[in-house]
Amino acid sequence: MAAAGIDGLVVTHPPNIRYLTGLNASTGIVVIGGGRVTLIVDFRYAAAARAVAGDTVAVEVADGQLDAVAAALIQKAGFARVGVEGEYLSISRFNRLASAVARPQLPLAEGPAAPALTPVERLMAGVRAVKDDDEIAILREAGRRLSAVARDLRRWAVPGASELEVAAAIDAAVREAGFERPAFETIVASGPNAALPHARPTSRRLAAGDGVVLDFGGVYDGYCVDLTRTVAIGPMSPGFRRMFGAVRDAHAAALGVVSPGARAADIDGAARHLLEARGLGEAFGHGTGHGLGLEVHEEPRISKHTSRDERVEAGMVFTIEPGVYVPGVGGVRIEDDVLVVEGGCELLTDVPIEL
Amino acid sequence: MAAAGIDGLVVTHPPNIRYLTGLNASTGIVVIGGGRVTLIVDFRYAAAARAVAGDTVAVEVADGQLDAVAAALIQKAGFARVGVEGEYLSISRFNRLASAVARPQLPLAEGPAAPALTPVERLMAGVRAVKDDDEIAILREAGRRLSAVARDLRRWAVPGASELEVAAAIDAAVREAGFERPAFETIVASGPNAALPHARPTSRRLAAGDGVVLDFGGVYDGYCVDLTRTVAIGPMSPGFRRMFGAVRDAHAAALGVVSPGARAADIDGAARHLLEARGLGEAFGHGTGHGLGLEVHEEPRISKHTSRDERVEAGMVFTIEPGVYVPGVGGVRIEDDVLVVEGGCELLTDVPIEL
Repeated sequence: MAAAGIDGLVVTHPPNIRYLTGLNASTGIVVIGGGRVTLIVDFRYAAAARAVAGDTVAVEVADGQLDAVAAALIQKAGFARVGVEGEYLSISRFNRLASAVARPQLPLAEGPAAPALTPVERLMAGVRAVKDDDEIAILREAGRRLSAVARDLRRWAVPGASELEVAAAIDAAVREAGFERPAFETIVASGPNAALPHARPTSRRLAAGDGVVLDFGGVYDGYCVDLTRTVAIGPMSPGFRRMFGAVRDAHAAALGVVSPGARAADIDGAARHLLEARGLGEAFGHGTGHGLGLEVHEEPRISKHTSRDERVEAGMVFTIEPGVYVPGVGGVRIEDDVLVVEGGCELLTDVPIEL
Repeated sequence: MAAAGIDGLVVTHPPNIRYLTGLNASTGIVVIGGGRVTLIVDFRYAAAARAVAGDTVAVEVADGQLDAVAAALIQKAGFARVGVEGEYLSISRFNRLASAVARPQLPLAEGPAAPALTPVERLMAGVRAVKDDDEIAILREAGRRLSAVARDLRRWAVPGASELEVAAAIDAAVREAGFERPAFETIVASGPNAALPHARPTSRRLAAGDGVVLDFGGVYDGYCVDLTRTVAIGPMSPGFRRMFGAVRDAHAAALGVVSPGARAADIDGAARHLLEARGLGEAFGHGTGHGLGLEVHEEPRISKHTSRDERVEAGMVFTIEPGVYVPGVGGVRIEDDVLVVEGGCELLTDVPIEL
């Protein structure tokens, strides 16, 4: 906060609220500053908020608008410059908050001036990107459990099964493995459907000759893990084998450069250059990876668009997931989750690449 | 758009993008104006966007930032005043978009002035709140299917079953009933846990004497329905029976005033006054209902905070869900989904109140 030039901070993004307080709620506000942390919730979350707050967090239950309670608290605290989360706070809420903190001038003429509200970006995201020991322990266990599910993929991805049936079997196994829920809508994309990186499962039935992209994740103790394997139904065609080999090598190339201090853009570049060299650069239209934590997409972004001065650090956890997609033909993606450690990386997921 | 004083509109909220184009994607932008609708997506959704776009929607695939593509399109179209979704667009994106559309002055000195970006609120929400015949048909079918699931609640909510087990059984039944997925995290809150309106299922086992709040929903063809029943395990205690009776009567009172032209605040008031008369006003801390559609919480809001000039209209679909919550003791909630029709309302859910 000092580096951002603020003496107060209003946190509205629910995963950031959970990170700070432990409260898992769809709405709420945390106000930080002056040595105090206050959690503002509505009636629905009052009991849950009190249960997590302990001695370090004050809880206020708002009857009406949470924003109005936050504004009153900011005025009372006398902050000079209050940060709000620029990436998350909507224009409407910003305007509402800004007008609420501009306290009436006349009855309080000698009081402090209205605080300036200033959007800050990636403040909480930066803190959250580097995991502490407790978070790493959870993510390790989650990766271990998701890998166990992945090792069964061949039991479900069989000729005659529909994509929807395979997805339902994966989702059931994810819950059976102890996850609270899938981390996102499971992708089972077979044959030509695999050319859509974000395909939704359909009633299409798997058949010999198909490549099938299976991308799924789980939320364990609040933390997300994410894994993809591409399975061949029957013998691979030469074209599919070439795509598969290129993605496998791109995945290995990216993993090979992950270590503390590596540029995120260079990790992406390692996968990208390999695919370009195999004539598949155009077919790789997304980034190489994304951070994992309380959200399934968070910092760091491992992408060609990531600024050159962004480097990964020990304790960061993210995916490595190169892929190629050829419209009308199909696609391949291979994804694992890594923890950056001294000298390199630790794989949190552990499943054979070839299924 | 004319009423809002804008000649261009940038839509960024994914459910609004789906409503306008049919594309079900986590990111994207729709630009409307000058007789054109353009859907901007990244590589991942390119094929899906082209598949839904048909002849009426132009598709642009962005290599980098979607916002930059939208800005270029706005500049080219020569809009004078462009609306953005104030409730959803973040401060950061607004600033990025605003600086991108402020075209350089010198090389283009004789071109049109940079367009003004102006936040508009509830423009799409207002359109979406009144359902058309296709949407009503989907919501009717969804309500019918969710009701069938609810009629089986007593099979799962039995002594000895844990809240988590009951929730898993409900989720499986929701999928079995043809829903794409649950509409939100299923609530099974037993005994004292039912005092938390948004409880998450725990390993607590149901026992004789418990009241159990079961709140669950499903997404059918993109549309959300939502239903709650409160089940007694064994004979009801006198205190529980009193709470149950009050909520049942509040639910009926609210339903009784739903008809075209009724004030949303009065529908809430009907439930609220009944609970106040029974000495349970303090225990009813949330609103009486929320709209249902592509989102599980949308317009209209049926709440004491809803402005007195907001009235419900034929074609609106929302929940009626009064509840009471007594910390340390328990809670009761009863929820159905209604469609406003000439002269009153049609229940989309149809399940006995007493289970």
